[in-house]
Amino acid sequence: MLDNVRLSKIREILEKKKLDAIIITSASNISYFTRIKTIGDASMILYLSKEGTTRLYVPVLEYYRLLEETRGLSNIEVYAVSKHMRIDGRQFHGTFIDLLKRINERHEKIGVDASTSPAGFKIKEMFGDKAVDITEDLWSIRMIKDDKELELIKKAISATKRGIEALADYVNEKITDTELAGIFEHRVRIDGIEEYAFPPLILLKPENSYPHNLPVGRRVGKKNLILVDVGVKYRGYCSDITRMITWGRPLSEERKALEVLVEAINNVIDKAEPYMKGSDIDSIARNTLARHGLDKYFIHGLGHGLGIDVHEPPYLSPGYDRQIKPGMVFTIEPGIYIPGKYGVRIEEDAVMTNKGIKLLSRGFERILSL
Amino acid sequence: MLDNVRLSKIREILEKKKLDAIIITSASNISYFTRIKTIGDASMILYLSKEGTTRLYVPVLEYYRLLEETRGLSNIEVYAVSKHMRIDGRQFHGTFIDLLKRINERHEKIGVDASTSPAGFKIKEMFGDKAVDITEDLWSIRMIKDDKELELIKKAISATKRGIEALADYVNEKITDTELAGIFEHRVRIDGIEEYAFPPLILLKPENSYPHNLPVGRRVGKKNLILVDVGVKYRGYCSDITRMITWGRPLSEERKALEVLVEAINNVIDKAEPYMKGSDIDSIARNTLARHGLDKYFIHGLGHGLGIDVHEPPYLSPGYDRQIKPGMVFTIEPGIYIPGKYGVRIEEDAVMTNKGIKLLSRGFERILSL
Repeated sequence: MLDNVRLSKIREILEKKKLDAIIITSASNISYFTRIKTIGDASMILYLSKEGTTRLYVPVLEYYRLLEETRGLSNIEVYAVSKHMRIDGRQFHGTFIDLLKRINERHEKIGVDASTSPAGFKIKEMFGDKAVDITEDLWSIRMIKDDKELELIKKAISATKRGIEALADYVNEKITDTELAGIFEHRVRIDGIEEYAFPPLILLKPENSYPHNLPVGRRVGKKNLILVDVGVKYRGYCSDITRMITWGRPLSEERKALEVLVEAINNVIDKAEPYMKGSDIDSIARNTLARHGLDKYFIHGLGHGLGIDVHEPPYLSPGYDRQIKPGMVFTIEPGIYIPGKYGVRIEEDAVMTNKGIKLLSRGFERILSL
Repeated sequence: MLDNVRLSKIREILEKKKLDAIIITSASNISYFTRIKTIGDASMILYLSKEGTTRLYVPVLEYYRLLEETRGLSNIEVYAVSKHMRIDGRQFHGTFIDLLKRINERHEKIGVDASTSPAGFKIKEMFGDKAVDITEDLWSIRMIKDDKELELIKKAISATKRGIEALADYVNEKITDTELAGIFEHRVRIDGIEEYAFPPLILLKPENSYPHNLPVGRRVGKKNLILVDVGVKYRGYCSDITRMITWGRPLSEERKALEVLVEAINNVIDKAEPYMKGSDIDSIARNTLARHGLDKYFIHGLGHGLGIDVHEPPYLSPGYDRQIKPGMVFTIEPGIYIPGKYGVRIEEDAVMTNKGIKLLSRGFERILSL
């Protein structure tokens, strides 16, 4: 399904910046602006010229799939790029480098999403002064989500919720962190989830005392504090949710830490207003933790944008001085990590509206007590 | 577990190329040369100077985990990099850019794994003539697997085998491609698998007629030809296996295509010798398909290296003119894709030895007939 409305937004950049052509290289940008399904970080180039041409250059092994996806559309042409394999149909017989050289010769001023993908970065180096980095222009469009996108993100969240609840049902002394991940995965797959936003993090103590970690295949045991940070993709849109499962009575310092996280999230929801800076929203949570002397254990930003990419602009973090505007979707995820002991994090997905923050991940417990 | 043998190999590059320092930026390189656990594509810099210093610069949220991993080791120092968050312990208080500027000022000739990661590429641009791209030197070490690495890859393959067999047990008319993926996932998680080599591809007709695709949530139905391309990571090492499941009697052209794939793989195993070029091994399979008039449907390379990365050098593909040497591990994966109709692929994992190719993925059916 080619999206002409979104493509026309790229054309506006082309006109506004007086460019001869635009090249889009990142799979998530191509996916957003065309609605064509991209898989993984496949190398592709979306090319738009000021004369009105729209072309998609893809590796041979993607050619027939994308030809099928764009069948019947007169406003986009698909070309296979290959040095060694010649296949049926109209095609560009050469390499991506050959293609880029020709584009470089033909134009004086070329927009590239240079900061979004390694390919874009290399193209900018190749084009030199001719290249104009349009990454920020594309993000300013992508950051504001429409109702359809919010709907897809909510569906991803619903599947995630069912997955977390299924996992919680299976917790027992002998089950391992990795098998709990498998139960989550099986459940969301029943809902038709085609892929994950990121590998499921089911972290026991002490693994959860480090914010960035993976399950290790250890049994839950008689009691534990299980950190479940999971996200799926539903028709290309991500969820990203963290819930804590208390299995057996937590220590009083653990209970306290959990309460402080809830307080921090509630303060953020209460106090954040549209057009506040990302850093100021981060401060609301960080100040709540500071009042309890726990801010030094909160060693990452409060949140990140969420959409086709699981981490995308905007950010809620110290030093991020841009505004959080209505339509922006992001996570709110304060955490407290006591190195080598335990870690707790709760993560909600939210959208900024004209009236303030609206949670997208409402309606299920932040702390599941078993 | 710091690996001094591997680190000493980096030091050999340092001496041989008369470098003042080496910077390693890709997570898989850092993981290989230090044996420290890296998660995802976390930004980190491993820095080695000719004076003998070895330092790991990491984001704040990775700091305590890596401090713990390197505890008691006197030959590596860990620094947290941050502009906005000051934490306990010895640290570099600044950004990665500040750090790189200091390194740039201090040295005349700096090795960088510039072609492996976007960060490496940017650093090369920043350092200009001072930068020496050592990507190939590192790959020439990483490409040759030792017995321990082969063992980990075999364990990843064993878990994958059990996962595929479990999935096959569950095939029925009403089950969907995504739920079959979930059954695979649940089974390998019981074996302690911490993450996947890539998202499981369980592809029905006609989705499997395109080599690069994802499950879509469709039911298997009364008969189908199920392509299962899956891989897991076991202690950081990847498997990558494709099996075909025939559910109900396949069409005669489908059966024929499956037989040709088996013939192509057997020919590759019989005829490939150590030190043959990657392109020549690819040709063995491509010629087999050509004898049956099916080579034009084989629209990707025959295989790719396999290790910490699921796609890494060497390659078995048209145009890859380097030698396949003893100790190199790679996939053998011929495929036949009839656009819009059906696709078949069988993929084995193998190691080149002094005597020729040895399969690592032996002992389970290439075609599971239900």
